[in-house]
Amino acid sequence: MAALENVVRLDDKFASFDEQWKPRTVGRINDMHIKVVKLQGEFVWHTHEDTDEFFLVQSGHMTIRMRGREDVVVGPNEFFVVPRGVEHCPSADEECEVVLLEPVGLVNTGDASPSDRTASNDEWI
Amino acid sequence: MAALENVVRLDDKFASFDEQWKPRTVGRINDMHIKVVKLQGEFVWHTHEDTDEFFLVQSGHMTIRMRGREDVVVGPNEFFVVPRGVEHCPSADEECEVVLLEPVGLVNTGDASPSDRTASNDEWI
Repeated sequence: MAALENVVRLDDKFASFDEQWKPRTVGRINDMHIKVVKLQGEFVWHTHEDTDEFFLVQSGHMTIRMRGREDVVVGPNEFFVVPRGVEHCPSADEECEVVLLEPVGLVNTGDASPSDRTASNDEWI
Repeated sequence: MAALENVVRLDDKFASFDEQWKPRTVGRINDMHIKVVKLQGEFVWHTHEDTDEFFLVQSGHMTIRMRGREDVVVGPNEFFVVPRGVEHCPSADEECEVVLLEPVGLVNTGDASPSDRTASNDEWI
């Protein structure tokens, strides 16, 4: 639980890995994990029935497509919250660095069938 | 609840007010509010017994003093989580812009006596 004791420098965290689509946990506040992830290409359409999902872009741009809603494009120092129950699909043409807030234990692919996009939940960096 | 529908640009939010020590709510994820605040000078020593508190610095530097622990200095693009139950006192020599994550309804001055630092909890921008 390093992040409860130390100042966390996001730039250092992003510099410490290259793999895309695999969120790493960098902090915790109550029952939420603070994660960092690099995105490029398209994720899978999925829904989190029981939680909103927060995306704060650090670099690059991501598009969030949502069922029945307008697409949104999120750029550096901007955030977007996908409301619970809204099916969505993140994507990014070029690599995009994103900070996520998610309940501890959330499966990143939500209700979608497990796939190579499904990440483990326990990697702290 | 604008932040459940729109992309939120943090720079625009910080540019929209000058008042210090008065957090504004800019988003919500589940039972947490995402807030922005400008700090300069010293806050009051206080404790939140039931919640961790998250500080992500956007510009400037803040110092977080904690009872019985080393001070921490948090700079741009760095965050720190004050664990629940730890008495703490934020301060900043020069103006510092900070993103906060706090449970909905949290009183910013915690267990300290209400003062001119105590902010209302319901101002969305």
